[in-house]
Amino acid sequence: MSVPDRLAEMTTVEAAEAVARGTIVVIPAGALEQHGPGMALGTDLVRAEAVVAQVAARLSGRVVVGPSIPVGVSPHHMAFPGTVTLTTGTFAAVVREYVTSLHSHGWTRFLVVTGHGGNNATLTTVAQDLLVSHPGIQLAWSPLTALAGDAVGALEPSAVHGHSGEAETAQMLHLAPHLVHTDRLEPGTTTPDQLDDVSRVARHHAQPALTLPYDRLSPNGVLGDPRRVTAEDGAAIVAAVVGRITTFLEEWLAA
Amino acid sequence: MSVPDRLAEMTTVEAAEAVARGTIVVIPAGALEQHGPGMALGTDLVRAEAVVAQVAARLSGRVVVGPSIPVGVSPHHMAFPGTVTLTTGTFAAVVREYVTSLHSHGWTRFLVVTGHGGNNATLTTVAQDLLVSHPGIQLAWSPLTALAGDAVGALEPSAVHGHSGEAETAQMLHLAPHLVHTDRLEPGTTTPDQLDDVSRVARHHAQPALTLPYDRLSPNGVLGDPRRVTAEDGAAIVAAVVGRITTFLEEWLAA
Amino acid sequence: MSVPDRLAEMTTVEAAEAVARGTIVVIPAGALEQHGPGMALGTDLVRAEAVVAQVAARLSGRVVVGPSIPVGVSPHHMAFPGTVTLTTGTFAAVVREYVTSLHSHGWTRFLVVTGHGGNNATLTTVAQDLLVSHPGIQLAWSPLTALAGDAVGALEPSAVHGHSGEAETAQMLHLAPHLVHTDRLEPGTTTPDQLDDVSRVARHHAQPALTLPYDRLSPNGVLGDPRRVTAEDGAAIVAAVVGRITTFLEEWLAA
Amino acid sequence: MSVPDRLAEMTTVEAAEAVARGTIVVIPAGALEQHGPGMALGTDLVRAEAVVAQVAARLSGRVVVGPSIPVGVSPHHMAFPGTVTLTTGTFAAVVREYVTSLHSHGWTRFLVVTGHGGNNATLTTVAQDLLVSHPGIQLAWSPLTALAGDAVGALEPSAVHGHSGEAETAQMLHLAPHLVHTDRLEPGTTTPDQLDDVSRVARHHAQPALTLPYDRLSPNGVLGDPRRVTAEDGAAIVAAVVGRITTFLEEWLAA
Amino acid sequence: MSVPDRLAEMTTVEAAEAVARGTIVVIPAGALEQHGPGMALGTDLVRAEAVVAQVAARLSGRVVVGPSIPVGVSPHHMAFPGTVTLTTGTFAAVVREYVTSLHSHGWTRFLVVTGHGGNNATLTTVAQDLLVSHPGIQLAWSPLTALAGDAVGALEPSAVHGHSGEAETAQMLHLAPHLVHTDRLEPGTTTPDQLDDVSRVARHHAQPALTLPYDRLSPNGVLGDPRRVTAEDGAAIVAAVVGRITTFLEEWLAA
Amino acid sequence: MSVPDRLAEMTTVEAAEAVARGTIVVIPAGALEQHGPGMALGTDLVRAEAVVAQVAARLSGRVVVGPSIPVGVSPHHMAFPGTVTLTTGTFAAVVREYVTSLHSHGWTRFLVVTGHGGNNATLTTVAQDLLVSHPGIQLAWSPLTALAGDAVGALEPSAVHGHSGEAETAQMLHLAPHLVHTDRLEPGTTTPDQLDDVSRVARHHAQPALTLPYDRLSPNGVLGDPRRVTAEDGAAIVAAVVGRITTFLEEWLAA
Repeated sequence: MSVPDRLAEMTTVEAAEAVARGTIVVIPAGALEQHGPGMALGTDLVRAEAVVAQVAARLSGRVVVGPSIPVGVSPHHMAFPGTVTLTTGTFAAVVREYVTSLHSHGWTRFLVVTGHGGNNATLTTVAQDLLVSHPGIQLAWSPLTALAGDAVGALEPSAVHGHSGEAETAQMLHLAPHLVHTDRLEPGTTTPDQLDDVSRVARHHAQPALTLPYDRLSPNGVLGDPRRVTAEDGAAIVAAVVGRITTFLEEWLAA
Repeated sequence: MSVPDRLAEMTTVEAAEAVARGTIVVIPAGALEQHGPGMALGTDLVRAEAVVAQVAARLSGRVVVGPSIPVGVSPHHMAFPGTVTLTTGTFAAVVREYVTSLHSHGWTRFLVVTGHGGNNATLTTVAQDLLVSHPGIQLAWSPLTALAGDAVGALEPSAVHGHSGEAETAQMLHLAPHLVHTDRLEPGTTTPDQLDDVSRVARHHAQPALTLPYDRLSPNGVLGDPRRVTAEDGAAIVAAVVGRITTFLEEWLAA
Repeated sequence: MSVPDRLAEMTTVEAAEAVARGTIVVIPAGALEQHGPGMALGTDLVRAEAVVAQVAARLSGRVVVGPSIPVGVSPHHMAFPGTVTLTTGTFAAVVREYVTSLHSHGWTRFLVVTGHGGNNATLTTVAQDLLVSHPGIQLAWSPLTALAGDAVGALEPSAVHGHSGEAETAQMLHLAPHLVHTDRLEPGTTTPDQLDDVSRVARHHAQPALTLPYDRLSPNGVLGDPRRVTAEDGAAIVAAVVGRITTFLEEWLAA
Repeated sequence: MSVPDRLAEMTTVEAAEAVARGTIVVIPAGALEQHGPGMALGTDLVRAEAVVAQVAARLSGRVVVGPSIPVGVSPHHMAFPGTVTLTTGTFAAVVREYVTSLHSHGWTRFLVVTGHGGNNATLTTVAQDLLVSHPGIQLAWSPLTALAGDAVGALEPSAVHGHSGEAETAQMLHLAPHLVHTDRLEPGTTTPDQLDDVSRVARHHAQPALTLPYDRLSPNGVLGDPRRVTAEDGAAIVAAVVGRITTFLEEWLAA
Repeated sequence: MSVPDRLAEMTTVEAAEAVARGTIVVIPAGALEQHGPGMALGTDLVRAEAVVAQVAARLSGRVVVGPSIPVGVSPHHMAFPGTVTLTTGTFAAVVREYVTSLHSHGWTRFLVVTGHGGNNATLTTVAQDLLVSHPGIQLAWSPLTALAGDAVGALEPSAVHGHSGEAETAQMLHLAPHLVHTDRLEPGTTTPDQLDDVSRVARHHAQPALTLPYDRLSPNGVLGDPRRVTAEDGAAIVAAVVGRITTFLEEWLAA
Repeated sequence: MSVPDRLAEMTTVEAAEAVARGTIVVIPAGALEQHGPGMALGTDLVRAEAVVAQVAARLSGRVVVGPSIPVGVSPHHMAFPGTVTLTTGTFAAVVREYVTSLHSHGWTRFLVVTGHGGNNATLTTVAQDLLVSHPGIQLAWSPLTALAGDAVGALEPSAVHGHSGEAETAQMLHLAPHLVHTDRLEPGTTTPDQLDDVSRVARHHAQPALTLPYDRLSPNGVLGDPRRVTAEDGAAIVAAVVGRITTFLEEWLAA
C-alpha cells in the first residue's frame, strides 16, 4: 500500500519518514459561513480541501496534507444564520499551534491554503510573529480564487461580484455539485447602484480599505449572480489555482 | 432533496429553519496524535465523526452536526512524530467560539462528542465558564469508549490497556479498516511490570491523578495489545456508544 | 525546634533544605461558595487544609505543605450570595505559577489536594500544558470525598446526594463543627423527582456530562440531607481520604 | 451565636444579610517570599491577616473579611529558595475576580490590605481598569508598615532598612513570635556603602524608581538589622496601622 | 484662534464639538525600523504624519487627527539594530483601544493611515473583530506608497524594489531631507539574481505569500537603489497619496 | 553632522554605535486626556518629550531617546470627551515590547519618563515582571512634577490641587504656551469642602489609596486653580525635574 499524503492517515512512523524526506506541510483552511440561499455553509473548506488534494496528488510524497481548519474568521457574515466565526486571535492561535507542533517534529515549511479571504490577514500576522518566536519556520499562505484572475475574468462577472457569486459558485458546481441548489440560486448585489452610500465608498476603493458587514453589502449575502456559471467555468478556475500552487511548491521544494 | 443534518452542508436558510425546530448541535472533536506503529494519526476524529453521523441518522432533523474540531489536546503524545496539539486555552477558545457563534443565531443546546480523552477536562472548563458568561447556553460533552464499558470488558483486554489498544483498534477495524495496518500492529505496554516506577504509581491510582507523557508509559505509544481484536468487537463498542448518546439526546430533546 | 512542614512557616534556608531532601509539595485548594443554609462558605478549603495537615503529619519531613488556594472554580454556585469564583483560566494560572515558581527552586513533584470538585478539570488542564512547557515537572491532583467511596456508601445517602449533603456535612462535623449550624441544616434535593426535566437528564447520565448551575439543581443549593450524619461518619470519611493520599505519596516518594 | 465577620465562616444566608447591611469587604493579601535566615516565608500574609482581624473586631458587623490572597508579586525575591510569585497579570486577575464576583452579589466597596509592598502597583492597576469595566465598584488598597511612619521612626532603624528589617521583624515578634527564630536573625545590608554601585543609585533615589532584585541589594535578603527590635516595638507599629485603617473605613462607611 | 485639527492640541471642550460635527478620526501609524545605512529609523511615522497633516489641512474641521502609533509590526527587520517591534496582538490592542475609547465619546468613523506595510494585516484583523464587538464602529485603513502606483512607476524603479528603495527615499527627500544622509545611501538588492533561492521564490510570487526576514532579502536592508531619486519624485508620490486619501474621506463624509 | 540623540532620527548603523557606547534609552510616555477647559489633551506627552529632550541635550551621546508612548492609562478621565485610554495590560505590553526589542540589540538600561501619573503603577509592574523574564534588563521610570516638590511648594498651590492645576499649567505656559488658552482657564476643585463625601475620604488619605474617576473629584476635571501661575513658575519646575533626572542618569551611567 502506498503511503498516504494526508497526515491524518499516516502512522507516526510514516510521519517521521515524511519529515526526513523534506516535505512541505500544506494545511487547508475554510470557513463556516453563509453562501447565500443556494449554496452550503461549508463551501470554503470544500474548495480548499479539494484544491489541496489535487496539489498533493501532483506532488505526492513531496508534500504532506496537514489537519484542516474548518472554521475561520467570518465576523462579517454573522448576521446570517449558521455562520460560525473565530476571533482573529483564536484563529491565529490554532494556526500557530498546528505549525509549531509540527515544527517540533522537524518540519520547517508550511503552506496554508485558505478557501476564505477573511482568513488572509490573520495568516499574515501569524507568519510575522513566527519570524521572531520561531525563526526556523517558513510559513506561506495562499488564497484560491485570487490566483485565477484570467479564468475569473473569462466569466465576465457582474460589475459587483465576489462572495458566493460567479467564481465561487462555478468552483462548487465543479467540485461539489450536491452542495449547490441551482433552483435556489439568486443574484445578490450586482451593480454599484444597489449599494448604500457607505458600501459604495467601500467597494469603490480597494484602498483605503473599509471593512463592512455583508448584510450591509447585500441583503441575501451574495455579491454577483451565481446563476450565470457552469461546472466547466469552475473547472477552469480550479485548474488555474491548482497549477499556480503546484508551481509555487515546486519552486520552494527546489530552493 | 432532504435537508442535510451537517451544518456545513446546509444553506443559511436551512440553518435558520434548524434553529426554529429546536435542534441540538452535536460537534465531533478529535485529535491528531500517534496511535502506535499500525494505526493512523487521525483515529480519534474518524471515530468521533462516525459515531456522530450514526447518532444524527437516528435523530435526523432533531440534531445538527456542527463543525468538527480535528486537533485536540495531546501534549502527552508530543514525543511521537506527527502529533499536533493545541494548548488547553486554545482548544477551549475554539469550542467556546463555535458555541457562542451558534448561540447568537438562537441555538441553546450543544453536545461535543470527543474521540479523545485528552479533551475531556478542557471541555468541562468551557462548560463551567459559560455558566457565567452565557447563562442561556447548555453545553454537554461525551466520550466514546468510556460509554461502552460492557462491550470493552467483553474483549478481555490486557491488564494494562487504553490508548491505541484493544478497544480503540477494534473500533477502527469496524469503522475505517483502511487506516489500520494489521501487519504493523504491535503490542505496547500490557502489564504493570513493564512500567517504570513512576508510571506504575500513576496507573495504580485512578485518583490521585498523575498525568504522564506517553513515551514514559509505553515505548511505542500503545497501551494494550491491538492484535487481539476484530471488526466485530468494534461494531459492538460503536453500537453501545451510539445507543448511549442517542438516548441521552432523546431525553434532552424531550426535557 | 523541629522544622515545620508548612512552607509558609519555613525560612528560606529551611526551604532550600526541603528541596535537597527530595520532598513533594502538597498544595491545598478550596473554594468559597455556598454550602446551603447551615454550613460555611469556606467549607472546601477547611477540609482540604485539614486533610493535607494530617497527611503531612504522617509524612513529616518528606512532604512540604505549599500555599493554599482559597478560591476555586465555582461558577455553578454564583446564584448564591457570598460565592466567589475564578475563571478557569485564572485558576489555572495560579496553580501553574505556584508550581513553576517552586520548580525554579528545584522541586519537581507536586500534588494539589482539592476540597472542591469544580477545580478538578482545570487541574488536569494545568498538568497537560506543563507536559510541554515544563517537562521536568510531575503534577498530580486529588479529590477528597471521591477517595472514600466505601465510607460514603456506609452513610446510605439520599438517592440524589452530593454538594453540601451527607458526606460533606459529616466531614465538617468532624473537622470544624463550629462551621456547621446544625439547627439550620435543611435537606435539599434528595430524589430525582424533585429535579426539573433537564436536571434529571443531567443527573441520570454521568456521561454524556451536562454542566448545570446549582440553583437549577436545588433551590437551597444542597443535594442530599445533611441532617442525617454525625461527626463519627465524617471521621471515617476523612480517615479513608487521608489513608489513600498518604499511600499514593509513599509510593511516589519511593518511585 | 454571633455572626462571623469572615466571609469564609458565613453561610450564604449570612452573606446576603451582610450585603444588605452595606458592609465593606476587606481582603488580606500577602506574599510567600524569603524573609531572611530567621523569619518565615509567610510573614506578609500573617501580618495582613492579623491586622485585618483587628480592624474587623473594631468594626464588627460593618465590614466583611474576604478571602485571603496568600501569594503575591515577588519576582524580586525569586533568587531565594521557597519564594513563590505570581506574575502581575495573574495577581491582578485574582483580585479582579474576587471583587467582581462579590460585586455580582451586591457589594460595591472593597479594601485590599496588603502585607507586601510588591503588590501595591498591581492593586492600583486593578482599581484603574475597574473604573471603566465596572464603574459601580470602589476599590481601595492599603499597605501596612507605611502607615506607621512615626512608630517606625521611633525604632531608629538602620540607614538602609526595609524588607525583613527592623519594622517587619518587630511586627512578627508581636503577632507571631513562633515564626521568628531570634537565634538565627542576622543583619543584612544596613549602610549604603555595603551596596554595589547600581543598588546605591537605586536606593539613593526614591524617584526615578529603579527596580532591582533583592539578591543584588542584600546577600541574605535582609535590609536593616532585625536583631535590634522587640515585640513591644511591633505592637506600636501594629496599633498605628490598625488605627489608620479603621479610621479610613469609618470615614468611608459614613460617606 | 482657529480650532486645531490634532486631537492632542484640542481641549476636551473642542473634542466634544468635533464629535458633534460628525468628524472622522484619522490616526497616523508608523514603525521604528531599519531603513538602510542612509535613512532614519523613524521614516515610516514621519511620512504617515506628514501625509495625514496635509489631508487634514485640506479637510480642516471635518477630520480630527488622532494620536500617532510610533511603533508598528516589524519582526522582519529585527536583525537590524534599532528596530523596535510590537507583536501583532499588542499592535492590535493599541489600535482597538484608541478606537473604542474615542467611540465611547461618540465618534463612529476611523481611518488609520500607516506608513508601514507590516501593519496592514493587523489593521484588517482589528476591523474584523470590531464588526462583532462594536458594530457601531466603521474602521478603515490606508497604506501610503501603494496608493501612488503611477508616480512610483514613473521612477522606473529597480527590478527588485521596495523597502527603503526608490519610492520611500524620494518621499523622505521631499518631506524630511534632514533624515536622509545622501552620502550614505547605498543600493540594496536590485535584481532577482542577487536573492537566494528561497527569497527569489518569495519575490516571484505575490501569492502564495511567503513572509521572510529582511536580512535574508538584502544584506543592508534595502530593496532597490535609493540614490536614483529626487525630492521632486517624492513630491509627486506624496501628492498622489494625499489626493487619494482626501477623495476617499470626502466620499465617506458625504455618505 | 552630529549624531542625533533620538532613535527615530538615527540610522540602523548609528543605533548599533549607540549600543556599543553603553547608552541608556530614555522613553517619553504621555497620555491623551482632558486637561480642563483651557489646556490641550496632549499636555502630558508635550511635557515628557520636552523634559527628555532637555535631559538628552545635557547628556548627549550618553543617552538615546527612544520612541514615545503617546497614550497612557487614563480610565479616570474617560467621562471627559477626547480622552483615550489603554488598559493597563496593553500599556504594559507596549512598554515591555519596546524594551525587549531594544534589549535584543544589546541595550540593557531603560528609563521611562512619564508625564502622566496614571502610568506609574503599570510601569512598576512591567519592571517587576521583567526581573524574571529578562534578568539582563534594568528598567527605571520617573514622574515629572513629583520630582520638583520645592518648586511646586513655592507656588503656594490651592488646598486641593493636582491634575491640570497650578503646577501642570505652569509647566505648559513655559514649554508650550500655544496649548494653554489662558482666557479659558478655570479653577476646578480647590478646597476639600467642594468634594463629595467619598472624594473627601479619598483625598484625605494618601493611603489607604482609593482610586476615583475625575468627574467625581471635579466637574471640570481640574484640581487647583490654573489661573494663578506664570511661565516662570513653570520654568522653575522644569529645571528642577530636568536636574533630578539628569543627576540620576549620570549616577547610573557611572555605576
